[in-house]
Amino acid sequence: MNRRNFLRTGAMGMATMATWPRSGQTVSAAAAGTSTNTLRLGIAGWTFRKFSLDDTLPMLRRLDVRNLCIKDFHLPLTASAEDIEAFHRKCREHGVTGYAVGPIYMGTQAEVDHAFEYARRVGVKLIVGVPYRLDGQRRVESPELLRYVEGKVRQYDLRYAIHNHGPDDLPYPTGRALMEWIGPLDRRIGICLDIGHNLRAGVDPIEDLEKFGDRVYDLHLKNVTAADKTGKTVELGRGLISIPDLARTLLKIGYSGVCSLEFEKDPDDPLPGVAESLGYFRGVLAALGASAE
Amino acid sequence: MNRRNFLRTGAMGMATMATWPRSGQTVSAAAAGTSTNTLRLGIAGWTFRKFSLDDTLPMLRRLDVRNLCIKDFHLPLTASAEDIEAFHRKCREHGVTGYAVGPIYMGTQAEVDHAFEYARRVGVKLIVGVPYRLDGQRRVESPELLRYVEGKVRQYDLRYAIHNHGPDDLPYPTGRALMEWIGPLDRRIGICLDIGHNLRAGVDPIEDLEKFGDRVYDLHLKNVTAADKTGKTVELGRGLISIPDLARTLLKIGYSGVCSLEFEKDPDDPLPGVAESLGYFRGVLAALGASAE
Repeated sequence: MNRRNFLRTGAMGMATMATWPRSGQTVSAAAAGTSTNTLRLGIAGWTFRKFSLDDTLPMLRRLDVRNLCIKDFHLPLTASAEDIEAFHRKCREHGVTGYAVGPIYMGTQAEVDHAFEYARRVGVKLIVGVPYRLDGQRRVESPELLRYVEGKVRQYDLRYAIHNHGPDDLPYPTGRALMEWIGPLDRRIGICLDIGHNLRAGVDPIEDLEKFGDRVYDLHLKNVTAADKTGKTVELGRGLISIPDLARTLLKIGYSGVCSLEFEKDPDDPLPGVAESLGYFRGVLAALGASAE
Repeated sequence: MNRRNFLRTGAMGMATMATWPRSGQTVSAAAAGTSTNTLRLGIAGWTFRKFSLDDTLPMLRRLDVRNLCIKDFHLPLTASAEDIEAFHRKCREHGVTGYAVGPIYMGTQAEVDHAFEYARRVGVKLIVGVPYRLDGQRRVESPELLRYVEGKVRQYDLRYAIHNHGPDDLPYPTGRALMEWIGPLDRRIGICLDIGHNLRAGVDPIEDLEKFGDRVYDLHLKNVTAADKTGKTVELGRGLISIPDLARTLLKIGYSGVCSLEFEKDPDDPLPGVAESLGYFRGVLAALGASAE
Protein backbone atom coordinates (compact mmCIF):
# COMPACT_ATOMS: atom_id res chain seq x y z
CA MET A 1 0.00 0.00 0.00
CA ASN A 2 1.20 3.50 -0.68
CA ARG A 3 -0.29 6.94 -0.75
CA ARG A 4 -1.65 6.71 -4.28
CA ASN A 5 -3.65 3.63 -3.38
CA PHE A 6 -5.46 5.37 -0.58
CA LEU A 7 -8.29 6.91 -2.57
CA ARG A 8 -8.89 3.73 -4.52
CA THR A 9 -9.03 1.60 -1.41
CA GLY A 10 -11.27 4.04 0.40
CA ALA A 11 -14.32 1.89 -0.17
CA MET A 12 -12.58 -1.06 1.36
CA GLY A 13 -11.74 1.11 4.34
CA MET A 14 -15.42 1.86 4.81
CA ALA A 15 -16.26 -1.84 4.56
CA THR A 16 -13.69 -2.57 7.25
CA MET A 17 -15.29 0.06 9.45
CA ALA A 18 -18.74 -1.43 8.97
CA THR A 19 -17.67 -4.86 10.15
CA TRP A 20 -15.87 -3.63 13.22
CA PRO A 21 -15.85 -4.02 16.19
CA ARG A 22 -15.99 -7.76 16.37
CA SER A 23 -15.88 -8.00 20.14
CA GLY A 24 -17.48 -6.14 23.01
CA GLN A 25 -14.84 -3.42 22.74
CA THR A 26 -16.18 0.09 23.18
CA VAL A 27 -16.86 1.94 19.97
CA SER A 28 -15.79 5.56 20.15
CA ALA A 29 -18.69 7.95 20.23
CA ALA A 30 -16.88 9.78 17.47
CA ALA A 31 -17.67 6.97 15.07
CA ALA A 32 -21.34 7.53 15.76
CA GLY A 33 -20.96 11.32 15.49
CA THR A 34 -22.52 11.85 18.93
CA SER A 35 -21.41 14.99 20.72
CA THR A 36 -20.31 14.83 24.35
CA ASN A 37 -20.08 17.12 27.37
CA THR A 38 -17.15 15.34 28.98
CA LEU A 39 -13.60 14.88 27.80
CA ARG A 40 -10.96 12.68 29.36
CA LEU A 41 -7.86 14.56 30.45
CA GLY A 42 -4.46 12.96 30.89
CA ILE A 43 -0.71 13.34 30.78
CA ALA A 44 1.67 11.99 28.18
CA GLY A 45 4.48 10.38 30.18
CA TRP A 46 7.09 12.24 28.10
CA THR A 47 6.17 15.40 30.05
CA PHE A 48 7.86 13.91 33.13
CA ARG A 49 10.84 12.33 31.34
CA LYS A 50 13.27 13.73 33.92
CA PHE A 51 11.30 12.27 36.85
CA SER A 52 10.91 8.78 38.23
CA LEU A 53 7.45 7.30 38.58
CA ASP A 54 7.69 7.85 42.34
CA ASP A 55 8.32 11.54 41.79
CA THR A 56 5.78 11.88 38.98
CA LEU A 57 2.74 10.37 40.70
CA PRO A 58 2.50 12.90 43.58
CA MET A 59 2.61 15.67 40.96
CA LEU A 60 -0.23 14.01 39.04
CA ARG A 61 -2.25 13.80 42.24
CA ARG A 62 -1.62 17.45 42.97
CA LEU A 63 -2.72 18.29 39.42
CA ASP A 64 -5.84 16.13 39.91
CA VAL A 65 -5.03 14.18 36.74
CA ARG A 66 -6.17 10.57 36.53
CA ASN A 67 -4.91 9.27 33.18
CA LEU A 68 -1.29 8.60 32.27
CA CYS A 69 0.10 7.40 28.95
CA ILE A 70 2.92 5.14 30.10
CA LYS A 71 6.40 5.82 28.73
CA ASP A 72 9.12 3.17 28.95
CA PHE A 73 11.22 5.17 31.43
CA HIS A 74 8.34 4.79 33.91
CA LEU A 75 7.71 1.15 33.03
CA PRO A 76 10.33 -0.54 30.82
CA LEU A 77 9.26 -2.80 27.97
CA THR A 78 11.26 -5.51 29.76
CA ALA A 79 9.26 -5.11 32.99
CA SER A 80 8.43 -8.34 34.81
CA ALA A 81 4.92 -9.26 35.94
CA GLU A 82 5.94 -8.10 39.43
CA ASP A 83 7.21 -4.76 38.07
CA ILE A 84 3.93 -4.25 36.25
CA GLU A 85 1.89 -5.11 39.32
CA ALA A 86 3.95 -2.69 41.43
CA PHE A 87 3.49 0.01 38.78
CA HIS A 88 -0.29 -0.35 38.81
CA ARG A 89 -0.41 -0.44 42.59
CA LYS A 90 1.56 2.81 42.87
CA CYS A 91 -0.66 4.44 40.25
CA ARG A 92 -3.81 3.33 42.07
CA GLU A 93 -2.47 4.78 45.32
CA HIS A 94 -2.32 8.16 43.56
CA GLY A 95 -5.68 7.85 41.81
CA VAL A 96 -3.96 7.38 38.45
CA THR A 97 -4.66 4.85 35.68
CA GLY A 98 -2.15 4.01 32.99
CA TYR A 99 -4.53 4.12 30.02
CA ALA A 100 -2.06 3.39 27.19
CA VAL A 101 1.61 2.73 26.48
CA GLY A 102 3.87 4.77 24.27
CA PRO A 103 4.87 6.35 22.06
CA ILE A 104 6.93 3.27 21.17
CA TYR A 105 9.10 3.34 18.05
CA MET A 106 9.09 0.01 16.18
CA GLY A 107 11.51 -0.66 13.35
CA THR A 108 11.15 -4.43 13.03
CA GLN A 109 8.51 -7.13 13.32
CA ALA A 110 10.24 -8.34 16.46
CA GLU A 111 9.84 -4.88 17.99
CA VAL A 112 6.16 -4.87 17.03
CA ASP A 113 5.75 -8.29 18.62
CA HIS A 114 7.48 -7.10 21.75
CA ALA A 115 5.34 -3.96 22.01
CA PHE A 116 2.06 -5.85 21.65
CA GLU A 117 3.12 -8.40 24.26
CA TYR A 118 4.11 -5.52 26.54
CA ALA A 119 0.72 -3.84 26.08
CA ARG A 120 -1.06 -7.13 26.78
CA ARG A 121 0.97 -7.72 29.90
CA VAL A 122 0.44 -4.14 31.10
CA GLY A 123 -3.26 -4.60 30.41
CA VAL A 124 -3.95 -1.51 28.32
CA LYS A 125 -6.23 -1.40 25.28
CA LEU A 126 -4.23 1.19 23.36
CA ILE A 127 -0.68 1.35 22.03
CA VAL A 128 0.72 4.65 20.83
CA GLY A 129 3.30 3.63 18.28
CA VAL A 130 5.46 4.64 15.37
CA PRO A 131 6.14 1.84 12.87
CA TYR A 132 9.04 2.81 10.61
CA ARG A 133 11.78 1.49 8.40
CA LEU A 134 15.27 2.90 8.08
CA ASP A 135 16.17 4.69 4.84
CA GLY A 136 19.88 5.12 5.47
CA GLN A 137 19.93 6.87 8.86
CA ARG A 138 16.43 8.22 8.43
CA ARG A 139 13.23 6.73 9.81
CA VAL A 140 10.53 6.70 7.14
CA GLU A 141 7.04 5.27 6.67
CA SER A 142 6.89 1.51 6.36
CA PRO A 143 3.90 0.01 4.52
CA GLU A 144 5.24 -3.47 5.25
CA LEU A 145 5.36 -2.92 8.99
CA LEU A 146 1.95 -1.22 8.89
CA ARG A 147 0.53 -4.39 7.36
CA TYR A 148 2.25 -6.40 10.06
CA VAL A 149 0.73 -4.13 12.72
CA GLU A 150 -2.67 -4.68 11.11
CA GLY A 151 -2.33 -8.39 11.70
CA LYS A 152 -1.37 -7.70 15.29
CA VAL A 153 -4.33 -5.43 16.13
CA ARG A 154 -6.59 -8.21 14.83
CA GLN A 155 -4.76 -10.85 16.82
CA TYR A 156 -4.73 -8.87 20.09
CA ASP A 157 -7.87 -6.77 19.52
CA LEU A 158 -5.97 -3.65 20.62
CA ARG A 159 -6.06 -0.17 19.22
CA TYR A 160 -2.86 1.20 17.77
CA ALA A 161 -2.61 4.99 17.49
CA ILE A 162 0.24 6.27 15.33
CA HIS A 163 1.88 9.45 16.49
CA ASN A 164 2.51 12.20 13.92
CA HIS A 165 5.74 14.10 14.32
CA GLY A 166 5.55 17.24 12.21
CA PRO A 167 8.34 18.54 9.97
CA ASP A 168 11.10 16.85 11.95
CA ASP A 169 13.07 14.00 10.45
CA LEU A 170 10.53 11.33 11.40
CA PRO A 171 7.66 9.60 9.57
CA TYR A 172 4.01 10.72 9.47
CA PRO A 173 4.15 14.53 9.78
CA THR A 174 0.41 15.16 10.19
CA GLY A 175 -2.92 13.50 10.79
CA ARG A 176 -3.88 13.82 7.14
CA ALA A 177 -0.53 12.38 6.01
CA LEU A 178 -1.10 9.47 8.36
CA MET A 179 -4.56 8.84 6.91
CA GLU A 180 -3.01 8.31 3.49
CA TRP A 181 -1.19 5.33 4.98
CA ILE A 182 -3.75 3.93 7.41
CA GLY A 183 -7.08 4.99 5.90
CA PRO A 184 -7.83 1.61 4.34
CA LEU A 185 -6.36 -0.48 7.15
CA ASP A 186 -8.24 -2.10 10.02
CA ARG A 187 -9.91 0.68 11.97
CA ARG A 188 -8.16 -0.38 15.13
CA ILE A 189 -5.19 1.41 13.58
CA GLY A 190 -5.69 5.13 14.10
CA ILE A 191 -4.01 8.38 15.03
CA CYS A 192 -2.41 9.81 18.13
CA LEU A 193 -2.91 13.35 16.90
CA ASP A 194 -0.10 15.57 18.11
CA ILE A 195 -1.73 18.92 17.48
CA GLY A 196 1.53 20.80 18.02
CA HIS A 197 3.50 18.80 15.49
CA ASN A 198 0.57 19.01 13.09
CA LEU A 199 0.72 22.78 13.18
CA ARG A 200 4.52 22.77 13.00
CA ALA A 201 4.04 20.94 9.68
CA GLY A 202 1.84 23.82 8.56
CA VAL A 203 -1.43 21.90 8.84
CA ASP A 204 -4.34 23.06 11.00
CA PRO A 205 -4.86 20.28 13.57
CA ILE A 206 -8.49 21.23 14.11
CA GLU A 207 -9.17 20.71 10.41
CA ASP A 208 -7.54 17.26 10.59
CA LEU A 209 -9.58 16.49 13.68
CA GLU A 210 -12.77 17.47 11.92
CA LYS A 211 -11.93 15.33 8.90
CA PHE A 212 -10.46 12.28 10.57
CA GLY A 213 -11.65 12.55 14.17
CA ASP A 214 -13.25 9.12 14.05
CA ARG A 215 -9.76 7.66 13.67
CA VAL A 216 -8.14 9.75 16.41
CA TYR A 217 -7.70 7.46 19.43
CA ASP A 218 -5.25 9.56 21.41
CA LEU A 219 -4.42 13.25 21.36
CA HIS A 220 -1.27 15.07 22.41
CA LEU A 221 -2.62 18.27 23.82
CA LYS A 222 -0.09 21.11 23.55
CA ASN A 223 0.45 24.46 21.95
CA VAL A 224 3.30 25.85 19.89
CA THR A 225 4.76 29.23 19.06
CA ALA A 226 4.98 28.92 15.25
CA ALA A 227 3.33 27.04 12.38
CA ASP A 228 6.67 25.75 11.12
CA LYS A 229 9.69 23.79 12.26
CA THR A 230 10.76 26.61 14.59
CA GLY A 231 7.59 26.18 16.69
CA LYS A 232 8.30 25.36 20.34
CA THR A 233 5.91 23.99 22.94
CA VAL A 234 4.52 26.59 25.33
CA GLU A 235 1.84 26.70 28.00
CA LEU A 236 -1.49 25.71 26.46
CA GLY A 237 -2.98 29.19 26.39
CA ARG A 238 0.10 30.89 24.97
CA GLY A 239 0.45 29.36 21.51
CA LEU A 240 -1.10 29.68 18.08
CA ILE A 241 -3.72 26.94 18.32
CA SER A 242 -7.14 28.14 19.49
CA ILE A 243 -7.83 25.77 22.37
CA PRO A 244 -11.48 26.87 22.59
CA ASP A 245 -11.91 25.91 18.91
CA LEU A 246 -10.12 22.63 19.54
CA ALA A 247 -12.34 21.87 22.54
CA ARG A 248 -15.50 22.76 20.62
CA THR A 249 -14.48 20.33 17.89
CA LEU A 250 -13.61 17.54 20.34
CA LEU A 251 -16.98 17.96 22.04
CA LYS A 252 -18.84 18.16 18.73
CA ILE A 253 -17.36 14.95 17.37
CA GLY A 254 -17.76 13.22 20.71
CA TYR A 255 -14.07 12.43 21.03
CA SER A 256 -13.80 9.58 23.53
CA GLY A 257 -10.04 9.17 23.75
CA VAL A 258 -7.84 10.96 26.25
CA CYS A 259 -6.63 14.53 25.75
CA SER A 260 -3.13 13.87 26.95
CA LEU A 261 -1.11 16.95 27.77
CA GLU A 262 2.42 16.65 26.41
CA PHE A 263 4.32 19.58 27.85
CA GLU A 264 7.82 19.61 26.42
CA LYS A 265 8.96 22.91 27.91
CA ASP A 266 10.78 23.10 31.26
CA PRO A 267 11.64 19.37 31.50
CA ASP A 268 13.48 19.93 34.79
CA ASP A 269 10.60 21.83 36.38
CA PRO A 270 7.43 21.10 34.42
CA LEU A 271 4.87 21.42 37.21
CA PRO A 272 3.94 25.13 36.89
CA GLY A 273 3.57 24.96 33.10
CA VAL A 274 1.62 21.72 33.29
CA ALA A 275 -0.64 23.17 35.99
CA GLU A 276 -1.27 26.32 33.94
CA SER A 277 -2.00 24.22 30.84
CA LEU A 278 -4.40 21.82 32.53
CA GLY A 279 -6.07 24.75 34.25
CA TYR A 280 -6.47 26.48 30.91
CA PHE A 281 -8.05 23.43 29.28
CA ARG A 282 -10.41 22.92 32.19
CA GLY A 283 -11.34 26.62 32.13
CA VAL A 284 -12.11 26.43 28.42
CA LEU A 285 -14.28 23.35 28.98
CA ALA A 286 -16.11 24.93 31.92
CA ALA A 287 -16.95 28.03 29.90
CA LEU A 288 -18.30 25.76 27.13
CA GLY A 289 -20.54 23.99 29.64
CA ALA A 290 -18.40 20.86 29.53
CA SER A 291 -15.95 19.23 31.90
CA ALA A 292 -12.91 16.97 32.06
CA GLU A 293 -12.60 13.73 33.96
CA MET B 1 -24.10 56.59 59.68
CA ASN B 2 -25.25 53.06 60.33
CA ARG B 3 -26.92 50.31 58.34
CA ARG B 4 -30.46 51.55 58.89
CA ASN B 5 -29.57 54.88 57.36
CA PHE B 6 -28.46 53.34 54.11
CA LEU B 7 -31.82 53.12 52.40
CA ARG B 8 -32.80 56.60 53.48
CA THR B 9 -29.55 58.11 52.27
CA GLY B 10 -29.69 56.23 48.98
CA ALA B 11 -30.85 59.31 47.12
CA MET B 12 -27.93 61.27 48.46
CA GLY B 13 -25.68 58.48 47.30
CA MET B 14 -27.01 58.87 43.78
CA ALA B 15 -26.44 62.62 43.96
CA THR B 16 -22.86 62.02 45.03
CA MET B 17 -22.38 59.70 42.08
CA ALA B 18 -23.79 62.28 39.68
CA THR B 19 -21.32 64.95 40.75
CA TRP B 20 -18.30 62.71 40.54
CA PRO B 21 -15.61 62.59 39.19
CA ARG B 22 -14.44 66.09 39.75
CA SER B 23 -11.07 65.65 38.10
CA GLY B 24 -9.80 63.93 35.00
CA GLN B 25 -9.75 60.61 36.81
CA THR B 26 -10.88 57.67 34.71
CA VAL B 27 -14.46 56.64 35.28
CA SER B 28 -14.85 52.87 35.38
CA ALA B 29 -16.63 51.49 32.35
CA ALA B 30 -18.85 49.72 34.83
CA ALA B 31 -20.39 52.99 35.84
CA ALA B 32 -21.44 53.54 32.25
CA GLY B 33 -22.64 49.92 31.94
CA THR B 34 -20.45 49.27 28.92
CA SER B 35 -19.40 45.66 28.43
CA THR B 36 -15.79 44.77 27.71
CA ASN B 37 -13.78 41.99 26.06
CA THR B 38 -10.69 42.44 28.17
CA LEU B 39 -10.13 42.00 31.85
CA ARG B 40 -7.04 42.93 33.82
CA LEU B 41 -5.45 40.02 35.63
CA GLY B 42 -3.20 40.38 38.66
CA ILE B 43 -1.92 38.88 41.87
CA ALA B 44 -2.79 39.90 45.39
CA GLY B 45 0.56 40.14 47.16
CA TRP B 46 -0.75 38.03 50.06
CA THR B 47 -0.42 34.99 47.76
CA PHE B 48 3.38 35.26 48.05
CA ARG B 49 3.53 36.18 51.75
CA LYS B 50 6.28 33.62 52.36
CA PHE B 51 8.47 35.03 49.57
CA SER B 52 10.58 38.14 49.26
CA LEU B 53 9.95 40.53 46.39
CA ASP B 54 13.13 39.22 44.73
CA ASP B 55 11.77 35.68 44.83
CA THR B 56 8.22 36.70 43.89
CA LEU B 57 8.95 38.70 40.75
CA PRO B 58 10.55 35.89 38.72
CA MET B 59 7.49 33.77 39.50
CA LEU B 60 5.20 36.54 38.28
CA ARG B 61 7.22 36.77 35.07
CA ARG B 62 6.97 33.03 34.58
CA LEU B 63 3.21 33.28 35.14
CA ASP B 64 3.04 36.14 32.65
CA VAL B 65 1.23 38.32 35.19
CA ARG B 66 1.72 42.07 35.00
CA ASN B 67 -0.27 43.51 37.90
CA LEU B 68 0.61 43.20 41.58
CA CYS B 69 -1.32 44.52 44.54
CA ILE B 70 1.50 45.54 46.87
CA LYS B 71 1.51 44.11 50.40
CA ASP B 72 3.59 45.68 53.14
CA PHE B 73 5.97 42.71 53.40
CA HIS B 74 7.07 43.47 49.82
CA LEU B 75 7.18 47.24 50.37
CA PRO B 76 6.84 48.43 54.00
CA LEU B 77 4.66 51.41 54.83
CA THR B 78 7.82 52.96 56.21
CA ALA B 79 9.69 52.60 52.90
CA SER B 80 11.92 55.52 51.96
CA ALA B 81 11.80 57.24 48.58
CA GLU B 82 14.84 55.17 47.61
CA ASP B 83 13.16 51.93 48.69
CA ILE B 84 10.11 52.82 46.62
CA GLU B 85 12.21 53.66 43.59
CA ALA B 86 14.10 50.36 43.92
CA PHE B 87 10.80 48.50 44.26
CA HIS B 88 9.41 49.99 41.05
CA ARG B 89 12.65 49.38 39.18
CA LYS B 90 12.68 45.69 40.13
CA CYS B 91 9.03 45.37 39.15
CA ARG B 92 9.68 47.02 35.78
CA GLU B 93 12.57 44.64 35.14
CA HIS B 94 10.06 41.79 35.45
CA GLY B 95 7.30 43.44 33.44
CA VAL B 96 5.24 44.00 36.58
CA THR B 97 3.35 47.08 37.76
CA GLY B 98 2.29 47.60 41.35
CA TYR B 99 -1.25 48.80 40.67
CA ALA B 100 -2.47 49.26 44.25
CA VAL B 101 -1.42 48.89 47.88
CA GLY B 102 -3.05 46.71 50.49
CA PRO B 103 -5.02 45.34 52.09
CA ILE B 104 -4.02 47.74 54.86
CA TYR B 105 -5.87 47.61 58.17
CA MET B 106 -6.44 51.08 59.66
CA GLY B 107 -7.70 51.49 63.19
CA THR B 108 -6.96 55.20 63.76
CA GLN B 109 -6.94 58.48 61.86
CA ALA B 110 -3.16 58.45 62.11
CA GLU B 111 -3.07 55.07 60.38
CA VAL B 112 -5.38 56.36 57.67
CA ASP B 113 -3.13 59.39 57.21
CA HIS B 114 -0.10 57.15 57.01
CA ALA B 115 -1.70 54.82 54.44
CA PHE B 116 -2.74 57.68 52.14
CA GLU B 117 0.73 59.21 52.33
CA TYR B 118 2.21 55.80 51.56
CA ALA B 119 -0.08 55.36 48.53
CA ARG B 120 0.82 58.83 47.30
CA ARG B 121 4.53 58.17 47.69
CA VAL B 122 4.24 54.76 45.99
CA GLY B 123 2.30 56.47 43.20
CA VAL B 124 -0.75 54.20 43.03
CA LYS B 125 -4.32 55.37 42.47
CA LEU B 126 -5.96 52.69 44.59
CA ILE B 127 -5.74 51.73 48.25
CA VAL B 128 -7.24 48.46 49.41
CA GLY B 129 -8.09 49.07 53.02
CA VAL B 130 -10.04 48.04 56.05
CA PRO B 131 -11.05 50.93 58.33
CA TYR B 132 -12.15 49.56 61.71
CA ARG B 133 -12.54 50.36 65.36
CA LEU B 134 -11.84 48.04 68.26
CA ASP B 135 -14.81 46.71 70.21
CA GLY B 136 -12.89 45.04 73.01
CA GLN B 137 -10.50 42.75 71.17
CA ARG B 138 -12.71 42.65 68.09
CA ARG B 139 -12.34 44.77 64.96
CA VAL B 140 -15.71 46.12 63.89
CA GLU B 141 -17.09 48.62 61.37
CA SER B 142 -16.25 52.23 62.09
CA PRO B 143 -18.57 54.88 60.65
CA GLU B 144 -16.33 57.58 62.12
CA LEU B 145 -13.23 56.32 60.37
CA LEU B 146 -15.22 55.82 57.14
CA ARG B 147 -16.13 59.50 57.24
CA TYR B 148 -12.49 60.33 57.83
CA VAL B 149 -11.50 58.17 54.85
CA GLU B 150 -14.09 60.02 52.77
CA GLY B 151 -12.30 63.28 53.49
CA LYS B 152 -9.03 61.65 52.51
CA VAL B 153 -10.20 60.29 49.14
CA ARG B 154 -11.37 63.82 48.34
CA GLN B 155 -8.10 65.34 49.48
CA TYR B 156 -5.89 62.85 47.59
CA ASP B 157 -8.29 61.98 44.76
CA LEU B 158 -7.53 58.29 45.31
CA ARG B 159 -9.85 55.34 45.21
CA TYR B 160 -10.26 53.35 48.40
CA ALA B 161 -11.57 49.79 48.04
CA ILE B 162 -12.68 48.13 51.26
CA HIS B 163 -11.99 44.44 51.54
CA ASN B 164 -14.81 42.17 52.77
CA HIS B 165 -13.74 39.33 55.00
CA GLY B 166 -16.60 36.86 55.23
CA PRO B 167 -17.81 35.22 58.43
CA ASP B 168 -14.49 35.56 60.23
CA ASP B 169 -14.13 37.91 63.16
CA LEU B 170 -13.50 40.99 61.02
CA PRO B 171 -15.69 43.84 59.74
CA TYR B 172 -17.57 43.94 56.42
CA PRO B 173 -18.42 40.28 55.68
CA THR B 174 -19.77 40.76 52.14
CA GLY B 175 -20.09 43.21 49.29
CA ARG B 176 -23.72 43.92 50.11
CA ALA B 177 -22.90 44.45 53.79
CA LEU B 178 -20.20 46.89 52.76
CA MET B 179 -22.63 48.81 50.57
CA GLU B 180 -24.82 49.47 53.60
CA TRP B 181 -21.88 51.41 55.05
CA ILE B 182 -20.39 53.04 51.98
CA GLY B 183 -23.34 53.37 49.60
CA PRO B 184 -23.96 57.06 50.33
CA LEU B 185 -20.29 58.00 50.67
CA ASP B 186 -18.08 59.56 48.02
CA ARG B 187 -17.91 57.09 45.13
CA ARG B 188 -14.16 56.95 45.36
CA ILE B 189 -14.86 54.67 48.32
CA GLY B 190 -15.76 51.26 46.94
CA ILE B 191 -15.29 47.53 47.35
CA CYS B 192 -12.41 45.11 47.00
CA LEU B 193 -14.76 42.21 46.47
CA ASP B 194 -13.29 39.04 47.92
CA ILE B 195 -15.52 36.53 46.17
CA GLY B 196 -14.33 33.67 48.36
CA HIS B 197 -15.09 35.40 51.64
CA ASN B 198 -18.40 36.59 50.20
CA LEU B 199 -19.43 32.99 49.57
CA ARG B 200 -18.05 31.87 52.93
CA ALA B 201 -20.54 34.37 54.43
CA GLY B 202 -23.28 32.56 52.50
CA VAL B 203 -23.77 35.31 49.92
CA ASP B 204 -23.41 34.72 46.18
CA PRO B 205 -20.56 36.99 45.06
CA ILE B 206 -21.85 37.11 41.49
CA GLU B 207 -25.15 38.50 42.74
CA ASP B 208 -23.28 41.18 44.70
CA LEU B 209 -21.19 41.95 41.65
CA GLU B 210 -24.30 42.35 39.52
CA LYS B 211 -25.91 44.65 42.07
CA PHE B 212 -22.93 46.72 43.14
CA GLY B 213 -20.38 46.16 40.38
CA ASP B 214 -20.06 49.87 39.69
CA ARG B 215 -18.56 50.24 43.16
CA VAL B 216 -16.18 47.28 42.87
CA TYR B 217 -12.69 48.68 42.27
CA ASP B 218 -10.64 45.59 43.06
CA LEU B 219 -11.50 41.90 43.10
CA HIS B 220 -9.88 39.06 45.00
CA LEU B 221 -10.20 36.20 42.56
CA LYS B 222 -10.30 32.85 44.32
CA ASN B 223 -12.49 29.86 44.91
CA VAL B 224 -13.55 28.08 48.07
CA THR B 225 -14.73 24.64 49.08
CA ALA B 226 -17.83 25.56 51.10
CA ALA B 227 -20.39 28.37 51.38
CA ASP B 228 -19.73 28.80 55.09
CA LYS B 229 -16.94 29.47 57.56
CA THR B 230 -15.36 26.05 56.85
CA GLY B 231 -14.70 27.05 53.20
CA LYS B 232 -11.01 26.89 52.27
CA THR B 233 -9.31 28.43 49.24
CA VAL B 234 -8.60 25.98 46.42
CA GLU B 235 -7.41 26.18 42.84
CA LEU B 236 -9.77 28.43 40.89
CA GLY B 237 -11.50 25.65 38.97
CA ARG B 238 -12.01 23.39 41.96
CA GLY B 239 -14.37 25.37 44.18
CA LEU B 240 -18.06 26.19 44.40
CA ILE B 241 -18.06 29.51 42.54
CA SER B 242 -18.79 29.23 38.83
CA ILE B 243 -15.86 31.11 37.35
CA PRO B 244 -17.47 31.17 33.86
CA ASP B 245 -20.52 32.89 35.40
CA LEU B 246 -18.24 35.28 37.28
CA ALA B 247 -16.32 36.10 34.10
CA ARG B 248 -19.52 36.62 32.09
CA THR B 249 -20.71 39.08 34.73
CA LEU B 250 -17.38 40.94 34.86
CA LEU B 251 -17.41 41.27 31.07
CA LYS B 252 -21.08 42.29 30.98
CA ILE B 253 -20.66 45.08 33.51
CA GLY B 254 -17.40 46.18 31.91
CA TYR B 255 -15.41 45.72 35.09
CA SER B 256 -12.27 47.81 34.68
CA GLY B 257 -10.42 46.99 37.90
CA VAL B 258 -7.94 44.16 38.29
CA CYS B 259 -8.99 40.56 38.90
CA SER B 260 -6.35 39.86 41.48
CA LEU B 261 -5.79 36.22 42.26
CA GLU B 262 -5.44 35.68 45.99
CA PHE B 263 -4.34 32.09 46.41
CA GLU B 264 -4.19 31.26 50.09
CA LYS B 265 -3.47 27.53 49.75
CA ASP B 266 0.09 26.16 49.72
CA PRO B 267 1.80 29.33 51.05
CA ASP B 268 5.20 27.61 50.98
CA ASP B 269 4.83 26.42 47.38
CA PRO B 270 2.09 28.46 45.72
CA LEU B 271 3.38 28.41 42.13
CA PRO B 272 1.59 25.30 40.78
CA GLY B 273 -1.78 26.29 42.27
CA VAL B 274 -1.40 29.88 41.12
CA ALA B 275 -0.43 28.71 37.62
CA GLU B 276 -3.42 26.38 37.44
CA SER B 277 -5.74 29.13 38.67
CA LEU B 278 -4.50 31.80 36.26
CA GLY B 279 -4.59 29.25 33.45
CA TYR B 280 -8.16 28.40 34.36
CA PHE B 281 -9.26 32.03 34.34
CA ARG B 282 -7.54 32.69 31.02
CA GLY B 283 -9.11 29.55 29.54
CA VAL B 284 -12.55 30.66 30.66
CA LEU B 285 -12.01 34.08 29.12
CA ALA B 286 -10.69 32.62 25.86
CA ALA B 287 -13.73 30.38 25.49
CA LEU B 288 -15.94 33.44 26.06
CA GLY B 289 -14.13 35.30 23.29
CA ALA B 290 -12.40 37.59 25.76
CA SER B 291 -8.88 37.89 27.08
CA ALA B 292 -6.83 39.03 30.06
CA GLU B 293 -4.06 41.61 30.04
